[in-house]
Amino acid sequence: MTTIGIDLGGTKVFGVALEGDDVVREAKVATPPEGDPGAVVDAIAACVDDLGGSMPVGAVGLGAPGVVDTSAGVVHTAPNLAGFTEPVALGPLVAEALGVARVTVENDVNCGTVAEHRLGAGRGGRDVLGVFVGTGVGGGVILGGVLRRGTAGLAGEIGHMVVRAGGRRCGCGLAGHLEAYAGRAAMEREARRRHDAGEHTALVELAGDSRMKSNTFQKALARSDAVAVALLDEAVAALGVGLASVVACLDLDLVVVGGGVPDKLGPAFVVRIEEALRAELFVPSSPVRVVPAQLGDRAGAVGAALLARDAEEDRCR
Amino acid sequence: MTTIGIDLGGTKVFGVALEGDDVVREAKVATPPEGDPGAVVDAIAACVDDLGGSMPVGAVGLGAPGVVDTSAGVVHTAPNLAGFTEPVALGPLVAEALGVARVTVENDVNCGTVAEHRLGAGRGGRDVLGVFVGTGVGGGVILGGVLRRGTAGLAGEIGHMVVRAGGRRCGCGLAGHLEAYAGRAAMEREARRRHDAGEHTALVELAGDSRMKSNTFQKALARSDAVAVALLDEAVAALGVGLASVVACLDLDLVVVGGGVPDKLGPAFVVRIEEALRAELFVPSSPVRVVPAQLGDRAGAVGAALLARDAEEDRCR
Repeated sequence: MTTIGIDLGGTKVFGVALEGDDVVREAKVATPPEGDPGAVVDAIAACVDDLGGSMPVGAVGLGAPGVVDTSAGVVHTAPNLAGFTEPVALGPLVAEALGVARVTVENDVNCGTVAEHRLGAGRGGRDVLGVFVGTGVGGGVILGGVLRRGTAGLAGEIGHMVVRAGGRRCGCGLAGHLEAYAGRAAMEREARRRHDAGEHTALVELAGDSRMKSNTFQKALARSDAVAVALLDEAVAALGVGLASVVACLDLDLVVVGGGVPDKLGPAFVVRIEEALRAELFVPSSPVRVVPAQLGDRAGAVGAALLARDAEEDRCR
Repeated sequence: MTTIGIDLGGTKVFGVALEGDDVVREAKVATPPEGDPGAVVDAIAACVDDLGGSMPVGAVGLGAPGVVDTSAGVVHTAPNLAGFTEPVALGPLVAEALGVARVTVENDVNCGTVAEHRLGAGRGGRDVLGVFVGTGVGGGVILGGVLRRGTAGLAGEIGHMVVRAGGRRCGCGLAGHLEAYAGRAAMEREARRRHDAGEHTALVELAGDSRMKSNTFQKALARSDAVAVALLDEAVAALGVGLASVVACLDLDLVVVGGGVPDKLGPAFVVRIEEALRAELFVPSSPVRVVPAQLGDRAGAVGAALLARDAEEDRCR
């Protein structure tokens, strides 16, 4: 039986068809930059169509950004999606559009963590933290092999752990969060601030007025650009501190680091994060390891499919 | 059937006899300030004797400071106990001294958290963080109603979460930990540092060369002593930041705050911690509440008894 997994991102809708543990097809559709949630539902339906729409489908899962009420399939807050300023019952809407009984909806980073745990770098780990460093910093927590959702479906928001009280302003408005140091958008804001204050940096030169991407940082680092080096040093230090705090609280055995920034900067970046974590560990003998994610861009969609299949199996028990 | 719970502290061995959920007897013996682990074992045996030693005992539980291997009953690190510089198989030693089959050993703060969850301020909570603010800052994590021990038995060490990267030195040697701002020993170090630097403070006046106790801080606050006010403000702020980070990571519904400092400073101190936590919450609508512990000094011993009874029941299944 085929399971469909969809990763709904700010710029693209990415889908996979999963048979057993294998991705047998994938598809990509642009996320509508404006309009209402109906346009997003249409894009998701088009993506499922590209995956072979009419085939017999066992389950459909959807990973969405922001705060997700998984029991109702409602996306509460997703500032990166046009028309998602109010809660959207995305699960029921997509199910109706596809003509299926139900669609499982889960936070996208939780999906990515589940995929890495089951089929990627986290295989065999009982207690795994997934960390995804891209525009922002997201996380997912697996404890005893099970995804932790939390009281309000908000567990794993490690980007909003405080690493430096009173420190750099985060996109969420609060101060000193991990994301304010290690998220790409925050690093860009800081790079432009330093540029405006008179520091020269290849980052602004390379990006111009466009968004800085992970490879903008990669290229600037390759030129030993001082601002890029400093920003990445601060990002690594903040990740070390934040992950050490998670380990102090939960005593995990494995941290999987994925997302655009580490995917682009490579395993050496993840080694640096592990070193920074070790330097901050209260108990140096902690068995925790930090490893690079293995599933790249596919993790969210694969995880959404796995969670949909789990939910279907639970219902059939 | 009676269950015995012992809380092994740096200054006293405190024991309770539990029948059902009721403490029917309690006893206290001084912890030997020097000597080898045998002296500590003797003190524990004397405490059990005071509780009625020869009565039929269902199970014996022991809460110990430091790093505990619960499966073997071994205390790995307990700097506050004389003769505990190397790992001590305290469970088997105490079992032999008492003539019982086994003694369950668990970290003392984990014991306190279990007691508050089952019989105190945490009743009914599914996901509860216990925070104990005394000489240091300890924590215990209950998830889905179950105590989290972690990969190496080290979960809940929230005193060693970083709240301010590069900040005040912690007793453990690392920088910026919650305990470095909110632990009584750290507050005393900082008060004496400020005193030595020329700031007048009633804290040093009241304590002289003795240890500052929780009521030293209480009395200095009653006099509106500027250093005491500043230190407690910093402690509250650090607790707000640290607890907000735990909530970001785990999305808990309840935080129970106990220990000598909040017990002495009263519920208003816990209200301040809740306010500080709320100000740092990434999702202001989080349902998390912060409440004062209810079991006071007894929590550790009661929790040790509860865990011993649980272990006995598990074995009989």
